[in-house]
Amino acid sequence: MVQFSDIASELERQAIELPSWAFGNSGTRFRVFGTPGTPRTPEEKIADAAQVNAYTGLAPKVAIHIPWDKVDDYAALRSYANDLGVDLGTVNSNTFQDEAYKFGSLSSGEASVRRKAIDHHLECIEIMHQTGSRDLKIWLADGTNYPGQGDIRSRQDWLAESLREIYDALGDEQRLVLEYKFFEPAFYHTDVPDWGTSYAHVTALGPKAFTCLDTGHHAPGTNIEFIVAQLLRLGKLGSFDFNSRFYADDDLIVGSADPFQLFRILYEVVRGGGYDVDSPVAFMLDQCHNIEEKIVGQLRSVLNVQEMTARALLVDRAALLEAQNANDVLGANAILMDAFYTDVRPDLAAWRESRELPADPIAAFKASGYQEKIVAERAGGVQAGWGA
Amino acid sequence: MVQFSDIASELERQAIELPSWAFGNSGTRFRVFGTPGTPRTPEEKIADAAQVNAYTGLAPKVAIHIPWDKVDDYAALRSYANDLGVDLGTVNSNTFQDEAYKFGSLSSGEASVRRKAIDHHLECIEIMHQTGSRDLKIWLADGTNYPGQGDIRSRQDWLAESLREIYDALGDEQRLVLEYKFFEPAFYHTDVPDWGTSYAHVTALGPKAFTCLDTGHHAPGTNIEFIVAQLLRLGKLGSFDFNSRFYADDDLIVGSADPFQLFRILYEVVRGGGYDVDSPVAFMLDQCHNIEEKIVGQLRSVLNVQEMTARALLVDRAALLEAQNANDVLGANAILMDAFYTDVRPDLAAWRESRELPADPIAAFKASGYQEKIVAERAGGVQAGWGA
Amino acid sequence: MVQFSDIASELERQAIELPSWAFGNSGTRFRVFGTPGTPRTPEEKIADAAQVNAYTGLAPKVAIHIPWDKVDDYAALRSYANDLGVDLGTVNSNTFQDEAYKFGSLSSGEASVRRKAIDHHLECIEIMHQTGSRDLKIWLADGTNYPGQGDIRSRQDWLAESLREIYDALGDEQRLVLEYKFFEPAFYHTDVPDWGTSYAHVTALGPKAFTCLDTGHHAPGTNIEFIVAQLLRLGKLGSFDFNSRFYADDDLIVGSADPFQLFRILYEVVRGGGYDVDSPVAFMLDQCHNIEEKIVGQLRSVLNVQEMTARALLVDRAALLEAQNANDVLGANAILMDAFYTDVRPDLAAWRESRELPADPIAAFKASGYQEKIVAERAGGVQAGWGA
Amino acid sequence: MVQFSDIASELERQAIELPSWAFGNSGTRFRVFGTPGTPRTPEEKIADAAQVNAYTGLAPKVAIHIPWDKVDDYAALRSYANDLGVDLGTVNSNTFQDEAYKFGSLSSGEASVRRKAIDHHLECIEIMHQTGSRDLKIWLADGTNYPGQGDIRSRQDWLAESLREIYDALGDEQRLVLEYKFFEPAFYHTDVPDWGTSYAHVTALGPKAFTCLDTGHHAPGTNIEFIVAQLLRLGKLGSFDFNSRFYADDDLIVGSADPFQLFRILYEVVRGGGYDVDSPVAFMLDQCHNIEEKIVGQLRSVLNVQEMTARALLVDRAALLEAQNANDVLGANAILMDAFYTDVRPDLAAWRESRELPADPIAAFKASGYQEKIVAERAGGVQAGWGA
Repeated sequence: MVQFSDIASELERQAIELPSWAFGNSGTRFRVFGTPGTPRTPEEKIADAAQVNAYTGLAPKVAIHIPWDKVDDYAALRSYANDLGVDLGTVNSNTFQDEAYKFGSLSSGEASVRRKAIDHHLECIEIMHQTGSRDLKIWLADGTNYPGQGDIRSRQDWLAESLREIYDALGDEQRLVLEYKFFEPAFYHTDVPDWGTSYAHVTALGPKAFTCLDTGHHAPGTNIEFIVAQLLRLGKLGSFDFNSRFYADDDLIVGSADPFQLFRILYEVVRGGGYDVDSPVAFMLDQCHNIEEKIVGQLRSVLNVQEMTARALLVDRAALLEAQNANDVLGANAILMDAFYTDVRPDLAAWRESRELPADPIAAFKASGYQEKIVAERAGGVQAGWGA
Repeated sequence: MVQFSDIASELERQAIELPSWAFGNSGTRFRVFGTPGTPRTPEEKIADAAQVNAYTGLAPKVAIHIPWDKVDDYAALRSYANDLGVDLGTVNSNTFQDEAYKFGSLSSGEASVRRKAIDHHLECIEIMHQTGSRDLKIWLADGTNYPGQGDIRSRQDWLAESLREIYDALGDEQRLVLEYKFFEPAFYHTDVPDWGTSYAHVTALGPKAFTCLDTGHHAPGTNIEFIVAQLLRLGKLGSFDFNSRFYADDDLIVGSADPFQLFRILYEVVRGGGYDVDSPVAFMLDQCHNIEEKIVGQLRSVLNVQEMTARALLVDRAALLEAQNANDVLGANAILMDAFYTDVRPDLAAWRESRELPADPIAAFKASGYQEKIVAERAGGVQAGWGA
Repeated sequence: MVQFSDIASELERQAIELPSWAFGNSGTRFRVFGTPGTPRTPEEKIADAAQVNAYTGLAPKVAIHIPWDKVDDYAALRSYANDLGVDLGTVNSNTFQDEAYKFGSLSSGEASVRRKAIDHHLECIEIMHQTGSRDLKIWLADGTNYPGQGDIRSRQDWLAESLREIYDALGDEQRLVLEYKFFEPAFYHTDVPDWGTSYAHVTALGPKAFTCLDTGHHAPGTNIEFIVAQLLRLGKLGSFDFNSRFYADDDLIVGSADPFQLFRILYEVVRGGGYDVDSPVAFMLDQCHNIEEKIVGQLRSVLNVQEMTARALLVDRAALLEAQNANDVLGANAILMDAFYTDVRPDLAAWRESRELPADPIAAFKASGYQEKIVAERAGGVQAGWGA
Repeated sequence: MVQFSDIASELERQAIELPSWAFGNSGTRFRVFGTPGTPRTPEEKIADAAQVNAYTGLAPKVAIHIPWDKVDDYAALRSYANDLGVDLGTVNSNTFQDEAYKFGSLSSGEASVRRKAIDHHLECIEIMHQTGSRDLKIWLADGTNYPGQGDIRSRQDWLAESLREIYDALGDEQRLVLEYKFFEPAFYHTDVPDWGTSYAHVTALGPKAFTCLDTGHHAPGTNIEFIVAQLLRLGKLGSFDFNSRFYADDDLIVGSADPFQLFRILYEVVRGGGYDVDSPVAFMLDQCHNIEEKIVGQLRSVLNVQEMTARALLVDRAALLEAQNANDVLGANAILMDAFYTDVRPDLAAWRESRELPADPIAAFKASGYQEKIVAERAGGVQAGWGA
């Protein structure tokens, strides 16, 4: 049996990057509901993100999105973040909100549109130099809505050309992570719809290109932990976008829809070396808090990942291997389930206190008065959202 | 063999209601792209809808959406429509865009919110008296995003109470049609997610309540034509919202994603009496033209329904029955497929001309200069969309 | 906070019916693997089932399947079961393995086939009188593989007629439960594919007819707990067939694929009165142990249901209601999750011991030598399976 | 506009390999129904397959399955086939029906099991030398049913080792095609579940390894034509297993469930060079005729592929490209749909007659008396099926 004390030291290095946009408003095509206290600037988003780290010690970095987080002085933004105890992380590009991208961006049939989209990424790389970010994350909304609308095959070639130019502009310590998504906003075909397509492109690009796995971007029934195991084996798992879903890309809080799936994913991460000290895998959230409190939502998310990582680390791998080798189907399954059903919350609370963190980060945050303060202070202005 | 001449007269009574909102802008949560010439007022939407009817003879009614189509004088709006050769149709309520409905409307746990939502429907019934509309269509966005957020069971009871009050306010000639939807915008549970739930409610309400079947609102793999057959058998199929989808509720042009499915649906409609002269079934479109031309998109849609209805009518039902009775699996299937694979377009073109309609409605519309005219004329103002 | 001591007495009345066929061989269309010790007779299946009850106290009844469990003297079979501490339960009919049913049974277009299928059910009712069974469970494989093969609408009418004759033959204390299934073995349309269809039929039949919900028989993404809540509200939830699945009707051990889903289902059962003392809901397993040990598989299954029922009972419903009323999305969700994440296993082990049951039923069974004994004893003969 | 006369010559080279097992019995886990006239030997299967070729000219090769088609003298079997106007094609291995493969074959954790499975493939390669077959097709049933049962990561490594040994034994003109499948018979994880996994393996193996795409082996909603385009672009599309499905791997007649999907797939084949004279792509059927006539089922299948290939060839690619370049969404779609809706059957019938084939191959076969003859002749013996 593996005990909590055996794994506590491994929990210390856990770090989950927060998306700046999780603190802004989001919604569905039907409605974006506002929330009192929502940030109006990149700085206010970072300030909220810093709260999550302050109460959990789990979130030392904030991913930014260009142009939503565009500022004049990125060095100043980074310095602001550092003063709050966090750093800037992955830079996310945006090729879906400009009128020019109506029919595609890096995969567009129009050379001028591809040029514009490539230049946007070159600008992002520039920003990365100023923010000290390692990763450029590319998620493409590119695709078509009707059969025949675009030439699927040519678009792959155009995409490959565009990615090549971006890749070649990366600095020595920088990486490109290419996200895939099953569908939405395109409804017939998507240019990077699955891990195989991302893998084919990043393999062609070179050693600084990796795949980003968003847990909500798969067809119904897909075994995601298999993909995790496979990409780790192939050396191309660059990062996670954590969230959860019941249906499509719901962007719900990670672990809220299927906690056992999150456990299985994290078990394969651990099993495949993705949680090792020198692992190339970055862990990020990518979520929408459409109707729930945003800061508490982010707190809940990083705690879910932490709790499930603890369970994954608790798996008695020696015993599991023995049962697997004996083809003891139910015995092997029981060893996995035993870790999953272990209630790690009391141990984690005690461990947090030993590290001068609140035993219950959410309760501590709620008691702090921060939420009331921002509701009062952020009265005017325009709340941040996907549009700005 | 059934010949086109055998079915031509049946095509004459085909009528497909157009949604006013199909002429306004729409999009995804990522972006709403605008289009030159988009209507800015209910009148301009109706004018565009009238074009579809003028070129096809298929779309004599325009469904309106409250409050998107709110006007001071509905009698005047109707008169305006009549002058353009169309009439106002189904009134669609909206309980998803007011801040009050963040956690539900007719199924909300808050009595004051339910009151507001019921009152909105009573207002819609008032409008129906002025517009001469028969049907009040209720599609609810109600649901929850996280397990535990709401009490699923109580919400059904609240919904039943709300519907009862609305139903009791209907005039003698008015009907309530209750639409169901698998998911979106709610991501954990939806209060009216399937035909069974709609059926249970409309059965409890009484003879003026029916189910509305939106072809895009089902789980992956659902056999929709079975539901059509079943609801017709149970006497509770009130109306269709036609569109198509590859994934979720994509709201693509009807018949564009799976034409054979549309054929099977229309075959069951014909088979079950839903296309009979006195059928209670209303045929409507409910689509989004996010990136394609809107008027042409609506033309394409009604023509798709017409062409597929012709194919469904061409099924040699006597021969089919004989093959079915003989358990001749492939023989029966071949009879159905023979109608599906028949190219009805030349016969339909000739038939249209015999009725003083253009053989190719889309080409005729494109040649008319209408699109260029509205692009020029509708220069200022705010384009209509889901938000207004 | 609800404590285990608060709910212990409610656990006492838990009873989960075992399917006799779970102890026989099963497999996929590709292969049925045998297992040493597999029963060869109904008596041996019952003996194995009695082991599950002996070690858990959870499984006092064994459901039988006709003709797989056909015997000359059902009173003797019942007496045999009683001597082993269990009783006979639900009688399951079989209308899918006779050559006559190639194209349907109760929904067949051939009157003689329907006659044969109805007679089979009348025979089952006769057997129920001898076994003292309350429930006749009807799962139909009826459907078609190709569009056009059968007349969907007529088949519903034939089905209704067939069910009527069976229903009318029920004794005063007997019930008919009609199971639905999304697909398989029919691949185009299934005659009872969803809860709405079952509900429409059982409502038409009368008060002794109910719906049976098999947890593996839904479209991808279906919210099953919603259906549970709805059927309980409508008074028509008759029984559960528990199992789990990742893809189609995998028939895996209940709770093994998505334990959180099982929790949510059982929470709605408790919430809706389905676990009350006088509840009409019967709880059964319907599983296949294709490659794993069968008796241990059944032990694991009833323990999974017990553990998850305990968690569902632990939900602090007063606090939950308060959070729901306050629209505290994350607070309400946290209350539910708190119960789910509670490790009830130590409390259950102690409680079992207090009731003179082994703390760890699986370990106790394994130590008993029963498995080794049946492997040795059941050397010759034909192992039971779906074919016999 | 492309005319039929423009494409007729391209149709001449169409060749679709038939699976010998399509002529034997098949079914579901619930029941395998027999059919009068079903072959009892490999020779009888080949004789039936030769009928399909005789009436259509489309099916010059018969794929065989080892051990189902094991004979003492493969040269004699080939000679027998040649005398009937056909040849032997792809050799399909079987690693799912031996007791040894209960927990896996090439991916098994047991070295002795992998040895056995590798040796089976080496035997298949030997047979290929005798039959003159080019392709060794590997579809693996390998996977697990419960989380934890096997080590997903290690199994990939074992699989890679096993494939390496098989690949290295291939002759210069031989190829290995690795099929992937979403699920079934394994219900938790499958060792080759998606095209990405197959692609990673065949890329690692070398230039004689390709991916086999079975049209029924994908998650719900998967855009299969995208995968076709991608694999063609990557140079790794080796072969198709054609069939169709509404739900899982239904193995229905190709084109029967979603004819438009088949059209889109074949359009991408044509577009990507997969139908070119020197294309490496082999076209095969892999179907089950559970309840329908088997020979007619195969006739219907090859005709469906032929008819849809004709439609795909009829697409006006120059006009399509122009519309695509103009971002004319509906115009481009209309060009594609125009070809799909074209009724090619009369032209094909005339073209067949010009080549001394019956205009209506199914009617001609039915009139031939062959079916009645085999029903009479094949009275005794054991009908072929998956088990033998």
